[in-house]
Amino acid sequence: MASLEGFPQLTGSVLTDPDVMAAYAVDHCSPVHGAVPLAVVLAETTEDVAAAAAWCYAHDVVIVPRGAGSGLAGGASAIEGCVIISLAKMNAVKEINVADQYAIAEAGVINADLDRAVRAHGLMYPPDPSSFEICSIGGNVATNAGGLRCVMYGVTREYVLGLTVVLPDGRIIRTGRRTVKGVTGYDLTQLLVGSEGTLGIVTEVTVKLRPAPVVPPTTVAASFPDVVSAAAAVAAVVGTGVVPALMELMDRRTLECVEALRPFGLEDETRAMLIGQGSTPADAAVLAREFDAAGAHYTVVSDDPVEAAELLAVRRAAFHAYEHAGNIFSEDVGVPRSQLPEMFARIEAISAKYGVDIPTCAHAGDGNLHPTLIYPKGEREVPQAIWDAADEVFQAALALGGTLTGEHGVGVLKARWVGEELSEDVLELHRGIKAVWDPKNLLNPGRGF
Amino acid sequence: MASLEGFPQLTGSVLTDPDVMAAYAVDHCSPVHGAVPLAVVLAETTEDVAAAAAWCYAHDVVIVPRGAGSGLAGGASAIEGCVIISLAKMNAVKEINVADQYAIAEAGVINADLDRAVRAHGLMYPPDPSSFEICSIGGNVATNAGGLRCVMYGVTREYVLGLTVVLPDGRIIRTGRRTVKGVTGYDLTQLLVGSEGTLGIVTEVTVKLRPAPVVPPTTVAASFPDVVSAAAAVAAVVGTGVVPALMELMDRRTLECVEALRPFGLEDETRAMLIGQGSTPADAAVLAREFDAAGAHYTVVSDDPVEAAELLAVRRAAFHAYEHAGNIFSEDVGVPRSQLPEMFARIEAISAKYGVDIPTCAHAGDGNLHPTLIYPKGEREVPQAIWDAADEVFQAALALGGTLTGEHGVGVLKARWVGEELSEDVLELHRGIKAVWDPKNLLNPGRGF
Repeated sequence: MASLEGFPQLTGSVLTDPDVMAAYAVDHCSPVHGAVPLAVVLAETTEDVAAAAAWCYAHDVVIVPRGAGSGLAGGASAIEGCVIISLAKMNAVKEINVADQYAIAEAGVINADLDRAVRAHGLMYPPDPSSFEICSIGGNVATNAGGLRCVMYGVTREYVLGLTVVLPDGRIIRTGRRTVKGVTGYDLTQLLVGSEGTLGIVTEVTVKLRPAPVVPPTTVAASFPDVVSAAAAVAAVVGTGVVPALMELMDRRTLECVEALRPFGLEDETRAMLIGQGSTPADAAVLAREFDAAGAHYTVVSDDPVEAAELLAVRRAAFHAYEHAGNIFSEDVGVPRSQLPEMFARIEAISAKYGVDIPTCAHAGDGNLHPTLIYPKGEREVPQAIWDAADEVFQAALALGGTLTGEHGVGVLKARWVGEELSEDVLELHRGIKAVWDPKNLLNPGRGF
Repeated sequence: MASLEGFPQLTGSVLTDPDVMAAYAVDHCSPVHGAVPLAVVLAETTEDVAAAAAWCYAHDVVIVPRGAGSGLAGGASAIEGCVIISLAKMNAVKEINVADQYAIAEAGVINADLDRAVRAHGLMYPPDPSSFEICSIGGNVATNAGGLRCVMYGVTREYVLGLTVVLPDGRIIRTGRRTVKGVTGYDLTQLLVGSEGTLGIVTEVTVKLRPAPVVPPTTVAASFPDVVSAAAAVAAVVGTGVVPALMELMDRRTLECVEALRPFGLEDETRAMLIGQGSTPADAAVLAREFDAAGAHYTVVSDDPVEAAELLAVRRAAFHAYEHAGNIFSEDVGVPRSQLPEMFARIEAISAKYGVDIPTCAHAGDGNLHPTLIYPKGEREVPQAIWDAADEVFQAALALGGTLTGEHGVGVLKARWVGEELSEDVLELHRGIKAVWDPKNLLNPGRGF
């Protein structure tokens, strides 16, 4: 193993204790076990990141950039002998420009903290991954994270105006701008969004903000006799032309997992639940009408923000509840929204075929599903039946005109399937672009595509 | 000059008559005079484009891809001895998927035709450049075109889900997807948007659609005693948190140019005009209130779509009116919206300093201005005073935190200024990316950055 000889003095700290480093070697993707890093850098400035990168470049040491470690595809897990550069300590919101509706946040700022900071000025930062209380803006950029509100407001990509980026050799560049529009040159900002730390290390993010709604949305929750009719309700809402502020679907097994962790009174007849929001009471009434028409047992409409938060807490607890139930293999497929009922039907069939528990929740308004394959906590390696069932779920999504990953990224977990979605010519372009940015292939090698 | 020996048989036609080709050698950028092409290909299929590109690749012949030729930066003008590949005949809307709210359009489809086609299904295609009746979707993608409605709905980039692209050697690739979300691999789609035909030739575009508003927007027009107070009104509206459906500003000289072309009753006291739209009457009332508070002479509010169309026709006529007034050097700077009053003040000062007529209109809600420097029609070459004044306008925008081009692209006209906005390290990445896609530098060389 290489030594840290000549490693630069940083404002931040450098960890080398194996027990301490172990916590930085994995993310929330249970199937991917991190290897042993050489060191963990807790960077405090962009210059820290640049100095650490330059040292790694000179010594041919692999770098794994890391935000909050909440990723679900293993993209932030350690590679043997790498230097992990953690952005977690770079958590300052450096500017909130109210007049021009943008903010500049260091990469380690927690998503919900940024939103709270700008809400104080009547603004909002819309993209809200389910993990918004623990995930960081830099990680959101790395994966082009989605979230619950994205059905109305769009994903991370649509809010990133500019970036400060450290290149693998330690040079610092700035991409993008602070203006609403701008087309000078190639859009390197957009190329970096979703690149999973393979092209550069994002240290600061300039994000577009929106005015926060003055009136809170109206929430509609409904219980369904089966998941396919709930999915059909989603497609029906899309067809009305109303854009919901949020539309989340949970199947029976998801509800049972949440009930086991934090009981909320799950009823026997409820085989699926939809939670929608309309930005106006009229929009919410349309949601309620379509939910009823699709066969809901009952529909609850509420304009009380506290009650809405309680209903959404059930949804936001889903992932944690899955982790409680076992080791998890988290999928993230997307399908055209009209294919949601068919996709849910196929997941049920695959679950039965392999005898694998696959609770599924969905950002249904976006056609983005999280089928989550659960295997016993005792099993360190992913059982073959899980791989086989996961493969069939992916293939089903592709066959329905969908995608391998809607918002989690490829990471390590899904790398084997990328060639099913991207052609060899497209992958050749990927390798070329990677070589331009990272000629020594030191930055999160093997991840992202 | 090279011959066309061995040029493939196409479904479309190949033009070589110099007089006929002359019409394809220029776009709407008067300062850029097209050179003489070898041939013009009127492609009818993606395979036509691929075959023509493969021949050019084998013979080291430069390609200039061309949409409707409505570009304002010279990006579609001919290069000596090039083959122009026109997408104008590829103008079919191949699919409108109502359930999943997307459409697939060939690159030559006219923007407004696409919008009309989907409106028949209750949907809309939001990005609407002022030239929407003559510009094509492929050209919109090449420049990441903006438009009037973009202040509420966003620019072209936010509506492009996937592309069919011919690489310089004739290979055909598909990027992106039909789903709302998707993060598999690098976002080549987003890299291609705004790349001005330098990386690949876009032949088909999958676009995201939105439900069309059921209630037409309410229009608010106001006359101001000076352009700076009108610009201040824009900043004030942004500060209210209301997102206007549209907010356009015209200075006195713009109004005079339009009045000369198609009289609409311009009054002496009107030194600037703002046209805004609110998606609800309540939003429109906020616009009217802020316009009044900023010192408007009078404010007209109308919910009549015919009257709204007439008011907007004044704005949409601006560019044609500029062309009527002389040869034009069209700028396209963007500034943070709070800097709009200062930017307008600087343009007035630069106009006076150089004695150059610079009528300016603006997608004011986006901070995107079109200062248009006019010089006599008799002058074939751009006078030095125009270059000098244009340079000062660009420098002013950069100094205010802005950008060289908000939506028109760099093309040929602005190439000299790119290095003022992008660093050498960033430009090095541009050159690297260009070389990956176009190793022989045959595709619109020298344009875009």
